[in-house]
Amino acid sequence: MTTRRRPGLGTNQELARRHNLGTVLRHVHGAGQISRAELTGRMGLNRSTIAALVNELEALGITERALPAEGIPRQGAGRPSAGVRIAEDGPFVIAVDLGVDRAVVARIGLGGRVLQRSQAPVRSDGEAWQVGAAVAGLIRCVVEGVPDAAQLVGIGISVPGLVRNSDGLIRLAPNLEWHDVSFGGIVLAALGLDVPVSIANDADLGALAEHVRGVAVGVDDLIYVSGNVGVGAGVIAGGVRLEGAGGYAGEVGHLRFNPAGRECHCGNRGCWETEVGAHAIAEAIHCPSDKVAQLDEVLAGFGEPSPAVRATGTALGHGLADIVNVFNPRQVVLGGYFRSLYALVGPEVEAALADRALPAPLESVTLTLPGLGSDSSLLGAAEIALEPLFVDPVAALGTALVGVGTRLAG
Amino acid sequence: MTTRRRPGLGTNQELARRHNLGTVLRHVHGAGQISRAELTGRMGLNRSTIAALVNELEALGITERALPAEGIPRQGAGRPSAGVRIAEDGPFVIAVDLGVDRAVVARIGLGGRVLQRSQAPVRSDGEAWQVGAAVAGLIRCVVEGVPDAAQLVGIGISVPGLVRNSDGLIRLAPNLEWHDVSFGGIVLAALGLDVPVSIANDADLGALAEHVRGVAVGVDDLIYVSGNVGVGAGVIAGGVRLEGAGGYAGEVGHLRFNPAGRECHCGNRGCWETEVGAHAIAEAIHCPSDKVAQLDEVLAGFGEPSPAVRATGTALGHGLADIVNVFNPRQVVLGGYFRSLYALVGPEVEAALADRALPAPLESVTLTLPGLGSDSSLLGAAEIALEPLFVDPVAALGTALVGVGTRLAG
Repeated sequence: MTTRRRPGLGTNQELARRHNLGTVLRHVHGAGQISRAELTGRMGLNRSTIAALVNELEALGITERALPAEGIPRQGAGRPSAGVRIAEDGPFVIAVDLGVDRAVVARIGLGGRVLQRSQAPVRSDGEAWQVGAAVAGLIRCVVEGVPDAAQLVGIGISVPGLVRNSDGLIRLAPNLEWHDVSFGGIVLAALGLDVPVSIANDADLGALAEHVRGVAVGVDDLIYVSGNVGVGAGVIAGGVRLEGAGGYAGEVGHLRFNPAGRECHCGNRGCWETEVGAHAIAEAIHCPSDKVAQLDEVLAGFGEPSPAVRATGTALGHGLADIVNVFNPRQVVLGGYFRSLYALVGPEVEAALADRALPAPLESVTLTLPGLGSDSSLLGAAEIALEPLFVDPVAALGTALVGVGTRLAG
Repeated sequence: MTTRRRPGLGTNQELARRHNLGTVLRHVHGAGQISRAELTGRMGLNRSTIAALVNELEALGITERALPAEGIPRQGAGRPSAGVRIAEDGPFVIAVDLGVDRAVVARIGLGGRVLQRSQAPVRSDGEAWQVGAAVAGLIRCVVEGVPDAAQLVGIGISVPGLVRNSDGLIRLAPNLEWHDVSFGGIVLAALGLDVPVSIANDADLGALAEHVRGVAVGVDDLIYVSGNVGVGAGVIAGGVRLEGAGGYAGEVGHLRFNPAGRECHCGNRGCWETEVGAHAIAEAIHCPSDKVAQLDEVLAGFGEPSPAVRATGTALGHGLADIVNVFNPRQVVLGGYFRSLYALVGPEVEAALADRALPAPLESVTLTLPGLGSDSSLLGAAEIALEPLFVDPVAALGTALVGVGTRLAG
């Protein structure tokens, strides 16, 4: 994953140094542990430059020296290159995965290490301030006992809805019935903290996490399609998050699917979501409506797929064909309850995709399950909160908060 | 427009210098003429660095000094900053816009200046080598009389089809009935030249040109939707071309539109193209089938839209809603015969878009006509051929060809 600078900017020695420092950290973060020789190779810089950068990260307390890791091949015939790894008590972030029926909160360090986690049910008809208070409670849990010196870089929040990228405003979270909610501000107010908050759509964050440390590491063009009551997609294109002008890109759930079909909550008729959304599937398999949010588990309990489930698999594949034609991804990752659906009716999904996708984009795409299970969006939320560290580690640490455990214990 | 480097690379002084040199040239290329003060501001570098870079470009014969342009506001109270502009006899490229019924070829300099152009009809049932020979003939025309010292950087070709980005192979050009054609090699063989050739999809290049010097300058998220017998789209996302894994992204013509609809040449039923493609519209307006390639002119001749044309406008708007929901563009540029269709039934298109697009992405999008008329793809072809100059001007000039006019005159 890379961050784009404003196009047309020049660069100078100081900008180059910060870029390099952040990029070294990004590599260590991605790999967990990496040798200096490997860094030299990946970054195209010489050994002394890499050594200076690594020393600077170490002095900042972000990384530490490691013995050459077993299993990492030696570069050439010389002595093995010393390793760099994420420091034990380095900076951390708080990641929040807000679902339709539950919130998961975790304290996560560089390298994607989940240091502590906590979760609680959320009422889907709850008001934003009630949900915010519940999330704040979970945050207090996960920072309990954190050493005072540990630095909180920021909070990342994943939400099942449309999030404006300029300020993190939740424009619409249909299944929470939220419109224009400043959820970041609500959580901070409930905590009494002032720390950077980043908010993004759950599917977008699923795509990000799968790209950084899931099934799509090294894959620059991927789509994470999430069945999570509603249906949405996160897109990584050319190694970069596709956000669109306002941050709303990827609303594949409302692709026109069957103009003669059912009414959708968006006001239209026959959107893809009316065929493969949780409510449609629940109806097809006679799942009680209070179990819709647990559709993943319900589907996982199926032995043999019924004809209705097979038909849903076909509808999933047909919609994926549109996505493949339009985005030409290398990988489509099926998240949320699509994991269980795909496990049940994978052949139907694949056949329908092959039936409708154009041959050229079809031949290079694979459908896969998430490498991070149900944690993709949670880990993606950590990634956006960590991002300032990769842009400019020194500046990000400068604004990080210490003593959080003590402050929130009160 | 910016070029992405492989993520995770470091940078050093030499790389930074080349990046800066190419970036200065990109700014001059975009603006035509620009002051040093403006370059300083846009690139975030100091005056002496900018002066050194400008001097280097001048020494390479790419740019020249200009008097401060009238109409460009003075920066501060000092004397006006000297201007930089594209040199008169600088390097050039050859751009080819291959349509279904005609080929347009132009010699184009930096700044997008069309120096010479020529065009000829192309038989849609012609074999690739015949079309290649015709294009080679047009290229000979446009380099006639070029000074021997002028440097040919490369050839850019726009084609109405799916182009593999790794090697420019035309995988499919349905309306030319081409499969897996190495058209670049065919043209070079017909010319007896060895020079870099870049090939891309016409809608992709339309998007690029409109972004660099058309209606979408400064717009980082835009879609160019082209009606050109077939229907396709070019996408710029976050200021960067969205290519997809193989270069095939943007095949919106095959979005599922009406599963009960007509058969499409792709083998499916009810693709969007079967409702808004040239053949569908021609049928709706009783246009003779040998005029389909000139649908733009036929539509432009309409006084009052018939109900069938209005229905086509509605279908255009409904399909655009899918595009807006999925990509969240700031601007949708309607190219090809959609220009005339939109002029006829703009209100129907807008109403249908508003009816089906989600409110959040809808509120920030505008539909527009191309700023470059029917030349978008041609100028986009020039842009991809010029691109090496912006990555590394010195290296690109090192491989450029001189004496082309004389060599091709033989």
